Amino acid sequence: MASLDNVLSNLDRNLDTSVERLKALLRIPSISTDPAFAADCRAAAEWLVADLLDLGFDASVRETAGHPMVIAHHTGAGADAPHVLFYGHYDVQPVDPVDLWDNAPFDPQIVTMPDGSKRITGRGSADDKGQLMTFVEACRAYIAETGTLPCRVTIFLEGEEESGSPSLIPFLEENREELSAGVALICDTNMWDRTTPAISTGLRGLVGEEVVVSAASMDLHSGYYGGAAANPIHILAKILAELHDEDGRVTLPGFYDAVRDLPADVREIWNNLGFSEQEFLGGVGLSIPAGEKGRSVLEQTWSRPTAEVNGIEGGYTGQGFKTVIPAQARAKVSFRLVFDQDPQVVRQTFREFVKARIPADCRVEFHEHGGSGAIQLPFDSPLLTVARKALSDEWPNPAVMIGMGGSIPVVGEFRKRLSMPSLLIGFGHGDDRIHSPNEKYEMTSFHHGQRSWARVLHALAQADVD
Amino acid sequence: MASLDNVLSNLDRNLDTSVERLKALLRIPSISTDPAFAADCRAAAEWLVADLLDLGFDASVRETAGHPMVIAHHTGAGADAPHVLFYGHYDVQPVDPVDLWDNAPFDPQIVTMPDGSKRITGRGSADDKGQLMTFVEACRAYIAETGTLPCRVTIFLEGEEESGSPSLIPFLEENREELSAGVALICDTNMWDRTTPAISTGLRGLVGEEVVVSAASMDLHSGYYGGAAANPIHILAKILAELHDEDGRVTLPGFYDAVRDLPADVREIWNNLGFSEQEFLGGVGLSIPAGEKGRSVLEQTWSRPTAEVNGIEGGYTGQGFKTVIPAQARAKVSFRLVFDQDPQVVRQTFREFVKARIPADCRVEFHEHGGSGAIQLPFDSPLLTVARKALSDEWPNPAVMIGMGGSIPVVGEFRKRLSMPSLLIGFGHGDDRIHSPNEKYEMTSFHHGQRSWARVLHALAQADVD
Repeated sequence: MASLDNVLSNLDRNLDTSVERLKALLRIPSISTDPAFAADCRAAAEWLVADLLDLGFDASVRETAGHPMVIAHHTGAGADAPHVLFYGHYDVQPVDPVDLWDNAPFDPQIVTMPDGSKRITGRGSADDKGQLMTFVEACRAYIAETGTLPCRVTIFLEGEEESGSPSLIPFLEENREELSAGVALICDTNMWDRTTPAISTGLRGLVGEEVVVSAASMDLHSGYYGGAAANPIHILAKILAELHDEDGRVTLPGFYDAVRDLPADVREIWNNLGFSEQEFLGGVGLSIPAGEKGRSVLEQTWSRPTAEVNGIEGGYTGQGFKTVIPAQARAKVSFRLVFDQDPQVVRQTFREFVKARIPADCRVEFHEHGGSGAIQLPFDSPLLTVARKALSDEWPNPAVMIGMGGSIPVVGEFRKRLSMPSLLIGFGHGDDRIHSPNEKYEMTSFHHGQRSWARVLHALAQADVD
Repeated sequence: MASLDNVLSNLDRNLDTSVERLKALLRIPSISTDPAFAADCRAAAEWLVADLLDLGFDASVRETAGHPMVIAHHTGAGADAPHVLFYGHYDVQPVDPVDLWDNAPFDPQIVTMPDGSKRITGRGSADDKGQLMTFVEACRAYIAETGTLPCRVTIFLEGEEESGSPSLIPFLEENREELSAGVALICDTNMWDRTTPAISTGLRGLVGEEVVVSAASMDLHSGYYGGAAANPIHILAKILAELHDEDGRVTLPGFYDAVRDLPADVREIWNNLGFSEQEFLGGVGLSIPAGEKGRSVLEQTWSRPTAEVNGIEGGYTGQGFKTVIPAQARAKVSFRLVFDQDPQVVRQTFREFVKARIPADCRVEFHEHGGSGAIQLPFDSPLLTVARKALSDEWPNPAVMIGMGGSIPVVGEFRKRLSMPSLLIGFGHGDDRIHSPNEKYEMTSFHHGQRSWARVLHALAQADVD
């Protein structure tokens, strides 16, 4: 344990310089969904490769049809040591509306709160640059103190996580052998609360679809044509309204066929987490659970599938008023999947559902925006036992096993294509405002996240599991 | 009838000189929306005043906060004669893209078509200088042949019709007495076809509303919150979907209370117009009437009220995909009104309809975007009977009564502020390309339009109606 203690002390000592490194990475506006920022995405990848080379990793930028990947290997632990793959993503969400940010999104600041706690501001601070750097810093300290790492480590960083990961599958297929390890460690999730670390054992899958409904061949004057001409906004609104029934259930045929009810013991664990629905919703200005009737909010967000409209647009949306019947209306719709729901089946069922509701003289087009199945890690996995212990040693409260409402497609792909399980350990918080203005990452997350990874690497090597 | 015959012959004899006068007016680039042409707008007003003074009218340019009005009175018919007000506008639309014009927009030409028909080219030739000059030329010939006019005539010409008429209402209020007459004659509409004159007896009213639905206090990640947090796009889509029932009827309570069914004889006339629904819809790429079931397209657009969503916006609408549950979603909704539907009642009913569908922890705001009632000239009005007869005497086919789906605000203002009904008689055609490059006015429209007004003035005086 002496070596681990040295590593932890090293992390404590060097916290300030690790923050400076994170700020440098946060200054790169690597927005993957907007082609205008392609060069910045590459710059972020190159920054990471340079840092990992500096640590002694065999690191390189790897080309794809989209934004590049970063791959880095450290084999100093020897061929018999457990092999772990760490996954993170260096790309970030767009920043609009930019005028709602208190600090510029790409000029990170350390802000001290009234209670004395510190946080790091900026787009990507929590999602996912701050989180991925906790692992890199743990490696840096381990190498500095012991000359090497306790496990064989592959670091795999993606640049398209926020834009549907179009290059991920071909890249995994082409580099299957290089990327296969005993377990994937993923740092893109939240703690349970400020003092309780969490391992996410369930992740919802995701299907993204864009629907474009077209009616007339041009925008029409609603005086001359109103009442006679099809209005694509009406058609679209009706379809979207019919996606849920009065009980908040999704109405796609067969949508719940592969959805299982929660085992009684897991439900028991969740009920004992002390989760407050009122606080969860109240934190964002709401008070009434809006989803499936008769389910708790944890069930709704962790173990039930959803359909959400993430964007809609049609007709005149500028200042003032224009009495137009538009030629087109469009919506972006996503489905969160659980258990064995098949993304392709859901996508196809949705398309049929929409097509059946399009008038004969109108048209519909679909654009695919990613799809991935849900993940469920067995509750009795030895990996889980080891990681829970390591985390529980670092934080005031023992680690809990939770579900996750979000989707991390890569977890499903690791399972499906590389037969590799994933351990989801993250240090984010529900109020980090990822995807929103004023994203931040707690300094405690950044600091104890680094220390947590040092403990996890040490524990995995000791237990010799992967 | 001798005097009318003389007037008509006079118009025939002097067609060429009337064309020269129109060309002189068309050469003045009176584009009201562009401040650079303010002096030209004034020049057009002054040109008209000079011409009307020359005819014996008591004419003057009248100042407003914007472009001036032209008012001219002719009282030679004596205090007992019917009093008519003629309304037109001397301002024109901008001309860009100017390189799409075959002839310069302000250098009018007489063009002979392959079939021998002639047309007058230029911006404003149809909208509205050519149309308004048909009335002025009818007055000129009448005065030349009989020494006076058969009715008391007030001519009221606006210079801001193409830029929202900002000065109209204050001007009507300040000059209510001077502008009040028995009936307003308005020449700014189309014939039914090349040989069939038309009187527009119905104009739909309009209510514009913007609805903003707010749920959470910030945009949320649909993974963490999806299934538990209210999505304002869902709420809005459901409300908009519920605005129409399965038969295409608007579901607002009491919406149809003030809507009357079309009299059988008017329905008969409309059925016999030879209107092709397939051509009307086919021209814009559609084929199936989308409105109220069991109503013809003419009924749907001329005599039935509608609710149309003119714009909708919410969530992420840029390139790619963002799995957000937005804090807000908004829609612009307009209602076309008919008969005695009250705009304020419709607005209030709509707001109640929406509010009743907003969850208790969400909010809605409304923004008002104008409202005006419908215009319906009674089908048995003596004015209408007299005008139909006069027009039917002039043209190869009898005059038809038609509806109009759009709104002409001045008609509503005349009714509301001056208690004055309007007769909408115009000689334009659907292919006149008003507001577009290569605007033109048919020589038959200009010539027989003049003769039509002579007949209408004569008939109104004979029948002693106004």
